[in-house]
Amino acid sequence: MTCWETALTPVYSSLTHALAEVLVDVLWFIEGSEDEQMDPDDAVKVLEGVAHLVRKLSSDQRSELIDLLGTMAEAESDPARREFLEGLPEGFGLLDDAV
Amino acid sequence: MTCWETALTPVYSSLTHALAEVLVDVLWFIEGSEDEQMDPDDAVKVLEGVAHLVRKLSSDQRSELIDLLGTMAEAESDPARREFLEGLPEGFGLLDDAV
Repeated sequence: MTCWETALTPVYSSLTHALAEVLVDVLWFIEGSEDEQMDPDDAVKVLEGVAHLVRKLSSDQRSELIDLLGTMAEAESDPARREFLEGLPEGFGLLDDAV
Repeated sequence: MTCWETALTPVYSSLTHALAEVLVDVLWFIEGSEDEQMDPDDAVKVLEGVAHLVRKLSSDQRSELIDLLGTMAEAESDPARREFLEGLPEGFGLLDDAV
């Protein structure tokens, strides 16, 4: 690896990682929003929609997501957000019938 | 490929695709939300946060995301949501200095 390549090391290891970060950001906002910021029924609807899509993952894709969320939790310096990340696999029902 | 494998064909081609679908769902909700459903300042904050993260992608990751959004737009049957998908690369600033 040349210095030039080092300088171009992407912020995210992969697009998957980047998209997971974006999604966690959005979920973190929704989870922490007050009733005045976001209608609570809508917040639940969004979170359920996400959980529904996540449940359609293949078992390989589930494992990949669980690993990714684990890596993100380990790298997270904010304890509250770290706890949120650690709870996501269970919150999404990823552990229900994981193989 | 055996019948068994066919039956297990995942809904999403990859975790990346699944996460992009989830994210688009959330963004589509935010974009279409009324002021009573979500504080407009917060909606803008969330969308800007997403755009900020997306701008940190490497050029390979940008291209991958643009391709993915294009594939999703082609597969979208709802014309309004299709238009939304087609506008996302520009909305995210993905085309600004794409290579």
